[in-house]
Amino acid sequence: MTRFALTIEFDGRPFMGWQRQSHGPSVQQALEEAVFAITGEAAAVQAAGRTDAGVHATAMRAHVDVARPITAFRLMEALNARVRPAPVAVLAAEEVPDDWHARFSCVGRHYRYSIVQRRAPLTFDRGLAWRVTTPLDIAAMREGAARLIGRHDFTTFRSVHCQADSPLRTLDRLDVTAEGADIDIFASARSFLHHQVRSMVGCLVLVGQGKWTPDDVSAALDARDRAALGHNAPPDGLYFIGADYPRG
Amino acid sequence: MTRFALTIEFDGRPFMGWQRQSHGPSVQQALEEAVFAITGEAAAVQAAGRTDAGVHATAMRAHVDVARPITAFRLMEALNARVRPAPVAVLAAEEVPDDWHARFSCVGRHYRYSIVQRRAPLTFDRGLAWRVTTPLDIAAMREGAARLIGRHDFTTFRSVHCQADSPLRTLDRLDVTAEGADIDIFASARSFLHHQVRSMVGCLVLVGQGKWTPDDVSAALDARDRAALGHNAPPDGLYFIGADYPRG
Repeated sequence: MTRFALTIEFDGRPFMGWQRQSHGPSVQQALEEAVFAITGEAAAVQAAGRTDAGVHATAMRAHVDVARPITAFRLMEALNARVRPAPVAVLAAEEVPDDWHARFSCVGRHYRYSIVQRRAPLTFDRGLAWRVTTPLDIAAMREGAARLIGRHDFTTFRSVHCQADSPLRTLDRLDVTAEGADIDIFASARSFLHHQVRSMVGCLVLVGQGKWTPDDVSAALDARDRAALGHNAPPDGLYFIGADYPRG
Repeated sequence: MTRFALTIEFDGRPFMGWQRQSHGPSVQQALEEAVFAITGEAAAVQAAGRTDAGVHATAMRAHVDVARPITAFRLMEALNARVRPAPVAVLAAEEVPDDWHARFSCVGRHYRYSIVQRRAPLTFDRGLAWRVTTPLDIAAMREGAARLIGRHDFTTFRSVHCQADSPLRTLDRLDVTAEGADIDIFASARSFLHHQVRSMVGCLVLVGQGKWTPDDVSAALDARDRAALGHNAPPDGLYFIGADYPRG
């Protein structure tokens, strides 16, 4: 049995999310069916993080165990051939030790949230970014973001369906970048609560629109109450862009 | 009657091209139906250039005449509301003189051709770029491109269906840019022959792959024979990105 680490890109629009669901297609199912077609083995593909319906990835990390002898390169090529026409691509594959686990070995997760600030409807980016029609004050958004950095009880920014044991998380990075109409928010932490990035982004957009002040962000955080959340951003703009692992 | 100039973005994937076709949806039809829904007028929407099936635009220019009193801003907003769910967006609208014609007044046309150099299949960019799996020599492509600049008989780079009176065109710009895996080719001319950009790009990729030399590009041009064309690039990567008009 050989364990392979995979780097996976996917367009989340047609999927119910990463995880297998009885009520619709998932990225995990698409990959597991491809693995079965190649190896005849019903192997589980485990990811660094679960993603919601409509959320994307440019570099999800995952692992799978394969009994049949195959090189990492051949596995990657065969997966890309078999996973079609699903919009999923394996960008890299490598052999890893048996105790390397895409989820449990992961010590850092990185997301990007893409906003497009314009009146006209999206064409190429429909479902791939959040269109905000009102002008956004980037400096105010950065001030609001700074209030969330560090170790906090993020209950306000957590889905009621979140299954984590604790609402405590340490947010390492929440950077707002702007280039023309494109606004990207980069979030990094060891791990996130369910809906945490979308909930933080939703509130930062309220700040950018002048509906909230940075102090309102602090007050929402301090409330430790989901009812204090201003807005949950749609899944469209969310991308899993990277995972960190200790050097072997 | 007021003439409005429009700047239009569209994702060409679901369309048979710009121009109305009996056998499938077109961008022109989508816009003309939206104009009719707003004004009750069966007005023609004229574009700076026709595009083939699957070709995109970030800034197509067009015009339409409207009898009913309406401001440019209201027309733009109403078009964007009515054209949905087609992936078409009106980015700008302005009143222009009655003799301003999107096609006949146009003195410069600009295209971008987007190539992604990678082995893995495309996900987000499927149908929006040409995936080339072999490494490309950018310097050689630039040398090949230089052979096409200027006034030439472009018969080799012209579709057999081209209806232009003359195969003579003056190519003002053919720049190859590379950033990571993304290679863009920018082409500018007063006007182009049918398939000219895709035909030039197809040959430049042969040069990038080492299958052709820059001298082969010159030989193909000199042949003035469609049979001398090395390769016609797919429509996926082609974008109409701008049109120039004399200052009024």
